[in-house]
Amino acid sequence: MSHNSFGHMFRVTSWGESHGPAIGCVVDGVPPGIALSEADIQPFLDRRRPGQSRFTTQRREADEVRILSGVYQGQTTGTPIALQIENTDQRSKDYANIAERFRPGHADIAYHWKYGIRDPRGGGRSSARETAMRVAAGAIARKIIGDGVMIRGALVQMGPHGIDRSRFDWSEVERNPFFCPDAQAAVAWAEALDAVRRDGSSLGAVVEVVAEGVPPGLGAPVYAKLDADLAQAMISINAVKAVEIGDGFAAAALRGEQNADEMRMNPDGTIRFLANHAGGILGGIATGQPIVVRFAVKPTSSILTPVRSVDAEGNDIMIETKGRHDPCVGIRAVPVGEAMMACVLADHWLRHRGQIGAMGTPTL
Amino acid sequence: MSHNSFGHMFRVTSWGESHGPAIGCVVDGVPPGIALSEADIQPFLDRRRPGQSRFTTQRREADEVRILSGVYQGQTTGTPIALQIENTDQRSKDYANIAERFRPGHADIAYHWKYGIRDPRGGGRSSARETAMRVAAGAIARKIIGDGVMIRGALVQMGPHGIDRSRFDWSEVERNPFFCPDAQAAVAWAEALDAVRRDGSSLGAVVEVVAEGVPPGLGAPVYAKLDADLAQAMISINAVKAVEIGDGFAAAALRGEQNADEMRMNPDGTIRFLANHAGGILGGIATGQPIVVRFAVKPTSSILTPVRSVDAEGNDIMIETKGRHDPCVGIRAVPVGEAMMACVLADHWLRHRGQIGAMGTPTL
Amino acid sequence: MSHNSFGHMFRVTSWGESHGPAIGCVVDGVPPGIALSEADIQPFLDRRRPGQSRFTTQRREADEVRILSGVYQGQTTGTPIALQIENTDQRSKDYANIAERFRPGHADIAYHWKYGIRDPRGGGRSSARETAMRVAAGAIARKIIGDGVMIRGALVQMGPHGIDRSRFDWSEVERNPFFCPDAQAAVAWAEALDAVRRDGSSLGAVVEVVAEGVPPGLGAPVYAKLDADLAQAMISINAVKAVEIGDGFAAAALRGEQNADEMRMNPDGTIRFLANHAGGILGGIATGQPIVVRFAVKPTSSILTPVRSVDAEGNDIMIETKGRHDPCVGIRAVPVGEAMMACVLADHWLRHRGQIGAMGTPTL
Amino acid sequence: MSHNSFGHMFRVTSWGESHGPAIGCVVDGVPPGIALSEADIQPFLDRRRPGQSRFTTQRREADEVRILSGVYQGQTTGTPIALQIENTDQRSKDYANIAERFRPGHADIAYHWKYGIRDPRGGGRSSARETAMRVAAGAIARKIIGDGVMIRGALVQMGPHGIDRSRFDWSEVERNPFFCPDAQAAVAWAEALDAVRRDGSSLGAVVEVVAEGVPPGLGAPVYAKLDADLAQAMISINAVKAVEIGDGFAAAALRGEQNADEMRMNPDGTIRFLANHAGGILGGIATGQPIVVRFAVKPTSSILTPVRSVDAEGNDIMIETKGRHDPCVGIRAVPVGEAMMACVLADHWLRHRGQIGAMGTPTL
Repeated sequence: MSHNSFGHMFRVTSWGESHGPAIGCVVDGVPPGIALSEADIQPFLDRRRPGQSRFTTQRREADEVRILSGVYQGQTTGTPIALQIENTDQRSKDYANIAERFRPGHADIAYHWKYGIRDPRGGGRSSARETAMRVAAGAIARKIIGDGVMIRGALVQMGPHGIDRSRFDWSEVERNPFFCPDAQAAVAWAEALDAVRRDGSSLGAVVEVVAEGVPPGLGAPVYAKLDADLAQAMISINAVKAVEIGDGFAAAALRGEQNADEMRMNPDGTIRFLANHAGGILGGIATGQPIVVRFAVKPTSSILTPVRSVDAEGNDIMIETKGRHDPCVGIRAVPVGEAMMACVLADHWLRHRGQIGAMGTPTL
Repeated sequence: MSHNSFGHMFRVTSWGESHGPAIGCVVDGVPPGIALSEADIQPFLDRRRPGQSRFTTQRREADEVRILSGVYQGQTTGTPIALQIENTDQRSKDYANIAERFRPGHADIAYHWKYGIRDPRGGGRSSARETAMRVAAGAIARKIIGDGVMIRGALVQMGPHGIDRSRFDWSEVERNPFFCPDAQAAVAWAEALDAVRRDGSSLGAVVEVVAEGVPPGLGAPVYAKLDADLAQAMISINAVKAVEIGDGFAAAALRGEQNADEMRMNPDGTIRFLANHAGGILGGIATGQPIVVRFAVKPTSSILTPVRSVDAEGNDIMIETKGRHDPCVGIRAVPVGEAMMACVLADHWLRHRGQIGAMGTPTL
Repeated sequence: MSHNSFGHMFRVTSWGESHGPAIGCVVDGVPPGIALSEADIQPFLDRRRPGQSRFTTQRREADEVRILSGVYQGQTTGTPIALQIENTDQRSKDYANIAERFRPGHADIAYHWKYGIRDPRGGGRSSARETAMRVAAGAIARKIIGDGVMIRGALVQMGPHGIDRSRFDWSEVERNPFFCPDAQAAVAWAEALDAVRRDGSSLGAVVEVVAEGVPPGLGAPVYAKLDADLAQAMISINAVKAVEIGDGFAAAALRGEQNADEMRMNPDGTIRFLANHAGGILGGIATGQPIVVRFAVKPTSSILTPVRSVDAEGNDIMIETKGRHDPCVGIRAVPVGEAMMACVLADHWLRHRGQIGAMGTPTL
Repeated sequence: MSHNSFGHMFRVTSWGESHGPAIGCVVDGVPPGIALSEADIQPFLDRRRPGQSRFTTQRREADEVRILSGVYQGQTTGTPIALQIENTDQRSKDYANIAERFRPGHADIAYHWKYGIRDPRGGGRSSARETAMRVAAGAIARKIIGDGVMIRGALVQMGPHGIDRSRFDWSEVERNPFFCPDAQAAVAWAEALDAVRRDGSSLGAVVEVVAEGVPPGLGAPVYAKLDADLAQAMISINAVKAVEIGDGFAAAALRGEQNADEMRMNPDGTIRFLANHAGGILGGIATGQPIVVRFAVKPTSSILTPVRSVDAEGNDIMIETKGRHDPCVGIRAVPVGEAMMACVLADHWLRHRGQIGAMGTPTL
């Protein structure tokens, strides 16, 4: 048991505060003999890195990852892999004025009540900066599950603004600063977010992550369901308040015959599903269909608009956040969601191999 | 690690198949000196028990729980508590015809691919019958967290039919066979579900579970967030496909100033929140506000309407389910959701006490 | 985390008190498709069963095990296997007089201080009766590691009486009531133990368990060392106070060149070790040599000789144990030690396969 | 589950290779509000540090620990504490010649068979250098259990040379380079070890660790027995091959009435034990008597004397170790054993508080 560890056989333990000397994680359980260097991890961190457009926080971090153990001559050795990123742009002064003030919608008051003490600089341990380590661990997880599994994420809603599903195009995702799969929506979003940013406000978002090529049989029943582990993984990301698999909440409105994903034999003896309401998971176990997860990210409460709060002396106060923040934290949650998908799949990959043996081709 | 265990300090390990001789669970970590007998558990099982109205499966199980260990002279001893329920009404013949057939929307094909073997009788391990043990464990969990915490669940949507929030009345929940908090909606639902039942179809649903009186500080950051554990708990319930905390998906459409739950001092030195968009959890830690969780239950695929599928010999077939089933499994998911809430809270209760010490009254 | 669970991927959770209605365990993580029935387990339980000679307790228990889940049509399904044994010969009256008295050398006072309450009948949870479930779980563990691994145990010391290593003969072990590998020693032990029994006293013992055919590479470094897990497993057996691997304590008296197990190439390209001081484990990982574990069992304190103690009212008292007990509990610890060896190996077997893949033939 | 993590509520995850850039660990579960700085940890590391006398390896490491997270303004915050030590004196050239050679008595061949790859520099992950992190974590563990618990270790046997128990004096332990509690023995040991060192050989040792003031009730039954966890902790230390609690192996030779620790009431209503054969633990739970653990450390196989081995090409070779090594690694195992005692106690401290509540004064 550890409040700061994730996974079982592929196990990530993270540490670090936003404005401490560094953040890091230990990734244990990685199979030996996998080619790995910082160059395999850095591109994923760069996707998440702040300050890349005017739509993310202007904090400037190189976010340069170092591998400190577990790799020898370019290959994993099966021993724990320590990853570390130094915090270079900390500007603690931005936060000094909120040390004794509790920002609404933030974890300040909850940490205060739980621990009686907290590192207030940049949110301390509750900062989304921790998600950099998830992204780094996810890069290693991808190496375990291999190129046969493709994991992609996209922002499918920003504030009240959705996308047009008929225009969904994965190749658009890398062409705009929102990871938006709908080119037209991206244009509209830019305008909307500029306005929100000027207002000193923020927007929520919905992220969709899809994994294709996941071998049927991955997962486990009852309490280790693949979807249950995915839900935990996604909601553990900062600011995430909801998660759904496949049709999710929409499934509640369906009738049984609409929701059942019917099956037919292919000429080559494999099975094809005629729909994917289930989002690729039945009974907690992968069916080989794309695994589809969506999660909602709340708007950050670090806004310029003053809101009512209290301080540590018990005074009613007004509070506004002057530090650098993301007008839509959901944008940078896209690579984080992809990483958590990779981590959950890698964990179940090793767990499956442990109990059952190698993953075979599903035949009847 | 165990695929069939749940929780850490309050730890439930469940076992059993729908049509085996019995189902059971082991509850470990329970503090000593708690008054406990079967009479404390049975009422919760009775709420979940099938066959109580025409709207649930007609399987007739007494679902009589026995405590086999861990209790001496009416008190818990701190050693593991084994609970067991015999399966009395099994009627395996109902299921014989589907042993070699894969029901769409069920775990049949997934289990087949994962394990190469499965107990097909009544769904075997994937049967919702396993949730009886969750309810039993939840009854013990409630004893740990005490009467200061009130956990209540309700069905807030059946198929496409919602409730009128202005008519939400907890006392209505026990007055209709749907756990519906809106008396008028319950009348309409009865009619709608009768029609669905006559059609041999089924409906999905949305369940809301609320915990009041949860001490601020309960929970933990990063990977053991209270909401992450709740999400895992709820999605691990059979047929659940989505979960949200507080405003959940609706939060994505809000702006920062709308979503932040502002605070003000009370005259007695405590803090009051002016809203509860967060659903009682910030940074993974309870704020003392009501914890609000909603989850979506898909419509069961065990329907009389024939649907397309395949069999174990690789033939295209049509399949319909003749066994006794629930037209709306979401109804009986209400006590299960309450139980999972209790289990998660009890686990975090003990974890908090371990790391921090006794839970105090939150003051500044 | 669970105080009553053992192992990670092969995970045993046990429950039950000596004089409750039953004892049992849940074995999770077992691979599917393994032939298993009660008949595979019962012979191991029969070896451990009391009342088989005048040298073990006269409690008469059939110790008949039932499989309640996880097996379908004679094969494991990959879901948790629940095992249960009813307690049939409980005679609680034997123990009534010690309910409020603390037997020296027993867990009575420790349980009292920890929990404030305990089931005093037959030692309750601290009874060695719990080890029956270890033996049952061990029978399943053996199925996982297969016939290529041979696990055998023997009593190599009873009280102060050792064996003559030059007469060590595994086939003798089943020919005397002591599991003694030295036929001459067995004769002497019978006489010695008869005398001890007549005195109302008891003797300690040393058990040796050897596993041959363990694949090189099994185990893991640092905190999951194979020998560390074996040590924990053995000392967790009731009354065990010491454990050693290979030369164990004797290694402390050696010089480096004496203790190093030298190596030479075989003509077939495999490696042979010229000695086995290490007991088959280096750096926490199996070398393919026999794994040799010895553990010491203290003499039971349930003796007829009165000893000084106190009662729950704080009075100095004299206490003697009138119930039926083993004059040498070490005898029945032999099959328990074998079972724990099997459980540890099965757990590491699955863990190894999870991280590394299938176990291959070790070559350079 | 993690092969490189130790403990449950007080959980240490270690990483790093002997000659990588650094070694480190993450300590999770530490209660908030504990005063902690590097100065609290460094003295324990200094006790273990090599190169302090001619009797330990001449590797010169400052072993300067840095706290990278989890502490704010001199106090723990309840979030994970990352500790790190840079490797400064690596001299990889010393080890180049053994990269393709398997040192007998070392983990080289076992790692090769398990992983197919290993970092050979200085033993890589299997180096005793990892124990520095145990010592660092132990310093934090001591802070949790507080000054009421006193943990002390001593070397009670070096090679074949024991101590005279009648001269046992804890204050002597810090006055000689062997942590030897018998001043006369220390003189003799110096002479003996000088000779062994000149021969290019090495000696084994026995370490005794005693914890006084441990609250009765600490620990747990069955698989989480305090002695079982201590045994695992001690055997997980590099080169340890045996462990015993209290009388340990000697208990096997006793009779029941000799081994039972009798009890009598004190005038103040507390209980006193008349002996401590049990080593302070009954039924896996502390009795309040001193907890006594002894463990055997084998002589290191890194010796100048050539021994027979094989290389990675399958050739028979002679091998001798030219790097800097300890003639008696048992010496530096003393602070490591103390640290593991502290870690196990801290873990059970928090686990006990979680399940039972605060530890009280044991009364009847």
